[in-house]
Amino acid sequence: MKWLEDEIKNRGKVIDGNILKVNSFLNHQLDPVLLDKISLLWYDHFNKKNVTKILTIESSGIALATLTAVRFKTNALFAKKGCSANLGETYSTTIHSYTKDKDVEICVEKAYLTKNDRILIVDDFLATGSAIYGLIDLVNQSGATLVGIGVAIEKGFQGGGDKLRKDGYDLNSLEIIDAMDNDISNIKFRNN
Amino acid sequence: MKWLEDEIKNRGKVIDGNILKVNSFLNHQLDPVLLDKISLLWYDHFNKKNVTKILTIESSGIALATLTAVRFKTNALFAKKGCSANLGETYSTTIHSYTKDKDVEICVEKAYLTKNDRILIVDDFLATGSAIYGLIDLVNQSGATLVGIGVAIEKGFQGGGDKLRKDGYDLNSLEIIDAMDNDISNIKFRNN
Repeated sequence: MKWLEDEIKNRGKVIDGNILKVNSFLNHQLDPVLLDKISLLWYDHFNKKNVTKILTIESSGIALATLTAVRFKTNALFAKKGCSANLGETYSTTIHSYTKDKDVEICVEKAYLTKNDRILIVDDFLATGSAIYGLIDLVNQSGATLVGIGVAIEKGFQGGGDKLRKDGYDLNSLEIIDAMDNDISNIKFRNN
Repeated sequence: MKWLEDEIKNRGKVIDGNILKVNSFLNHQLDPVLLDKISLLWYDHFNKKNVTKILTIESSGIALATLTAVRFKTNALFAKKGCSANLGETYSTTIHSYTKDKDVEICVEKAYLTKNDRILIVDDFLATGSAIYGLIDLVNQSGATLVGIGVAIEKGFQGGGDKLRKDGYDLNSLEIIDAMDNDISNIKFRNN
């Protein structure tokens, strides 16, 4: 996606050599026009798969999941970090937050993830894959069918995406970054 | 809003007498059709105010802020809980989380909240008002103009909404609950 590469190059910033900051449109300030273009690409890729629900994890995935749910005419569901007593019966699992370097319990209410569901997982970033594998674990616990995974930006050099593809998942990463350093103009996108 | 009252009555649940759980459409599972109806009502109320940005707080406000930003053709911005080092210079303040009974630091990057902005704050719930007053504090720190506040469900009996109205803010709460107990059918909406 030339336009998404341009957005990343023009508006992104790299911190400490491996944190890509795209706060201006993707995960702090939210540009709904751009996010909707992302959701449309996922729709093009997955719309024949009879998706019944869009699953993501709080917080950065919520905006994308919402607009994707509009496209698919389904509900979205976001896994919560920390299983509060206010939730009913839940499916839960533990993921490792790469950015915060700590383990986090994530959960969804059983009522909203059922064996008849056909789930599309979406998220803003994919790095080591811990969050996505956590969401896959929740889907598997419920007996629902996972039809695919949509990711806006995959940090290819962190390995999560290659592992997911090797495991046979239908992963639609709109951009894959194979290398970057603190100078954003040096960023290397896969297949470019 | 008769339809929103019906959704709350038919799909909501009250826990411990004062926690209204509307997980099935508002803040865990997300029903984009319903959320978009909410955003449209805020649009009707605030569209003459030259809004330049929609401001909310993670996580439950993000879906509503995204769809509201689509309506207003603006960007959205969500305040983060906890000010990570990955953010640039920030405005920050402390709010008290009623549900979790603890203080939380919230922040936004200065770059995305500027004195030329005309801000509409939106959120799913309003109870004591701590989160909304925190967001107002961030707006005031930036020198931006606050044009109003959109809330889906106000728990009127917790006082935050009446305080905001008394303070002169243009608060558009779509439903105000004046009383409730563990039997959802006993819920009392204001002006009904």
